[in-house]
Amino acid sequence: MSRQDERDRYYNELAGSSLHRLAGLSDGIFAVAMTILVLTLAVPAMNEVRSESDLGRALLNLLPGVVTYVMSFLTLGIFWVGQQTQLSQLERTDRDYTWINLAFLLFVTLVPFSTSLLASFYQSRVALVEYWLNILVLGALILAAAEYAAKARLFNQENQQTIMRAVRRRVYIAQSLYFVATALCLIDTRLSIGLIVLIQLNYAIAPRVAFLRRL
Amino acid sequence: MSRQDERDRYYNELAGSSLHRLAGLSDGIFAVAMTILVLTLAVPAMNEVRSESDLGRALLNLLPGVVTYVMSFLTLGIFWVGQQTQLSQLERTDRDYTWINLAFLLFVTLVPFSTSLLASFYQSRVALVEYWLNILVLGALILAAAEYAAKARLFNQENQQTIMRAVRRRVYIAQSLYFVATALCLIDTRLSIGLIVLIQLNYAIAPRVAFLRRL
Amino acid sequence: MSRQDERDRYYNELAGSSLHRLAGLSDGIFAVAMTILVLTLAVPAMNEVRSESDLGRALLNLLPGVVTYVMSFLTLGIFWVGQQTQLSQLERTDRDYTWINLAFLLFVTLVPFSTSLLASFYQSRVALVEYWLNILVLGALILAAAEYAAKARLFNQENQQTIMRAVRRRVYIAQSLYFVATALCLIDTRLSIGLIVLIQLNYAIAPRVAFLRRL
Amino acid sequence: MSRQDERDRYYNELAGSSLHRLAGLSDGIFAVAMTILVLTLAVPAMNEVRSESDLGRALLNLLPGVVTYVMSFLTLGIFWVGQQTQLSQLERTDRDYTWINLAFLLFVTLVPFSTSLLASFYQSRVALVEYWLNILVLGALILAAAEYAAKARLFNQENQQTIMRAVRRRVYIAQSLYFVATALCLIDTRLSIGLIVLIQLNYAIAPRVAFLRRL
Repeated sequence: MSRQDERDRYYNELAGSSLHRLAGLSDGIFAVAMTILVLTLAVPAMNEVRSESDLGRALLNLLPGVVTYVMSFLTLGIFWVGQQTQLSQLERTDRDYTWINLAFLLFVTLVPFSTSLLASFYQSRVALVEYWLNILVLGALILAAAEYAAKARLFNQENQQTIMRAVRRRVYIAQSLYFVATALCLIDTRLSIGLIVLIQLNYAIAPRVAFLRRL
Repeated sequence: MSRQDERDRYYNELAGSSLHRLAGLSDGIFAVAMTILVLTLAVPAMNEVRSESDLGRALLNLLPGVVTYVMSFLTLGIFWVGQQTQLSQLERTDRDYTWINLAFLLFVTLVPFSTSLLASFYQSRVALVEYWLNILVLGALILAAAEYAAKARLFNQENQQTIMRAVRRRVYIAQSLYFVATALCLIDTRLSIGLIVLIQLNYAIAPRVAFLRRL
Repeated sequence: MSRQDERDRYYNELAGSSLHRLAGLSDGIFAVAMTILVLTLAVPAMNEVRSESDLGRALLNLLPGVVTYVMSFLTLGIFWVGQQTQLSQLERTDRDYTWINLAFLLFVTLVPFSTSLLASFYQSRVALVEYWLNILVLGALILAAAEYAAKARLFNQENQQTIMRAVRRRVYIAQSLYFVATALCLIDTRLSIGLIVLIQLNYAIAPRVAFLRRL
Repeated sequence: MSRQDERDRYYNELAGSSLHRLAGLSDGIFAVAMTILVLTLAVPAMNEVRSESDLGRALLNLLPGVVTYVMSFLTLGIFWVGQQTQLSQLERTDRDYTWINLAFLLFVTLVPFSTSLLASFYQSRVALVEYWLNILVLGALILAAAEYAAKARLFNQENQQTIMRAVRRRVYIAQSLYFVATALCLIDTRLSIGLIVLIQLNYAIAPRVAFLRRL
């Protein structure tokens, strides 16, 4: 190995090696994405509202927007908890792990777009499939990050096996459920959306029923 | 308990267990929500302003928007201080506590919407009640988080009693005052808004008068 | 003092006592405000641009927007450095200090509005005075925070005198300069804007010339 | 040196001296800029979409927007990793280093504008050159920050030489490549955009091929 190669290796070791900064950037991106979701909910135009009941009706018309907004907040919440759990088990990070996480964050920033799209076209299969692809890629990348971390021995070695088994099982089961829910759009996209929300609530609430909790 | 159950329990213990990350996400969401409140204030359109006095008048017309903007900033400030105080007394967190806080943060992200709605329709009872419901749920969730934390023994045990007594009293008194203020919309919604701002200023300024300070 | 009073005092001591969280919220609010400044710069509409020279001209027309954008970024940068310096000298914080800072942050979130207003109406004295009032209140609140901190003995006692003397001198001199620059709007608002930018650059660059550096 | 000068020097030493806060502000600004990039992607208008295939076509029309969005996310990711690596090697910071970084962050906040501009006018050389200038200034400022840090002995002295050699080589090579890619707009702007994305992917993926990795 030449001296130049050695120096490159050394610089690449320094690059992207701050766990603290990666957590800071991630919290920031999740926070902005979660908050701008609310922009999906357009305040009724003043010239279309002449009475209290007009306003009540206009708010009821926002219902599809509210459902997709809550669904996307849950999506982001689940992936935030997942990424946080993964990072908290790392003993160090490196340049490649950082970039896999940046790719993951790219698809986090896409969620507000997918959400607006689905809120506007909640009866469209194209919009639903686009939303599902967003979730699928997020799941794939969080798993890829974990697999890479295991291979590169970034985890606390004592917990690595437990973590990896849990991460793999969770991603595979959750993604299978999302796939089934999405496939139901062949019947009705609203059925898919309802089921996705139920799956997400199950993860958020983590019921005490052993079978559901274990999903 | 099967080995699988044990592993699940172990993973669930790791999940959502970083107080630091929860604080980071919360600060981010509060920061974005507080800053985008200003988007409620639309800059006057250039083609509607022909003179300095036109601009002055246009700025005066923003007054309802300014009042709701300040009111919502105070709302968010009060809940941020409340959540910060609560988190600072925790010795650890867990998955369920994290999710109660995520639900709380969902309603934090809703505040800019409720604010825009009330700024557009400040004479509407529907808009005011929607705003009040937003505050009510925030209060209910911050209390639920504290109750859960007490039950799950997440607090520093020495302070738990003091904290819980203070949190309960504060939430109950504040929410009672907000309810009374909102009920005044039967007379005039502007009366309600004025009273809510006064209640909030009382919490922010925490006057030296013992009676008011104790609310 | 009754037992209730004692408990209240105890709770008020806990409330808003985390320096770390205040810094986190502040960084978040400054970051969002600084970044959404760029929304002042509207991308030229596609149907108004038919050639490369059209686009070039359209970009040149953005110049007033660019100047106010840079000016506001400098404004926010100066106050961020000021607040950071102040916080870094504190040994602890309390509820009242936190609320003075929240009031300060309220006016930080107002800066994007004042900026848009001035970018749209850069030849209007009303817009310029509104912008100046925003800077004035920011200066007054950062000074109020320091005065309060000194009175409540929140500073590292060793540095308190040096800090307070420097803060007072800087706020008074800077605000006097901003006042003079704003008063020049009696001649031309663009003169005022140019001078404000020069004053800010002086603070940012901190030239080696002793006289300018000492301002 | 007069006593006043001494006091000024002392205050200037305190000002802008918190590495932690600079990292927090930077993470915040990068997070907001990266997330609002997605606003470049406008959701198709509901009245223009009558069927699933309409929606599919409308999404395909977003392709230029998607390419510039990914390109800008990569741009910001590369500069975030670069700045993070630099900050992690500092032992302390000072007022001037902080201001060079604030200038750098100003051009980070400009990236969403440059991105929207290029997404709207991806066949325009003016838009491409504006985008390239944004990258060029970011590169110049991150290098200026490093050069200043070296001169002011802010780096961990042991690593300074390695860091500086790597930073200089990386900035010069990367900027040369961006320049070549931009110059290709004389043939076709899309060629330039494609090449910039390839250059960025090379930095992100850091292939194992020694020649490419060393760029």
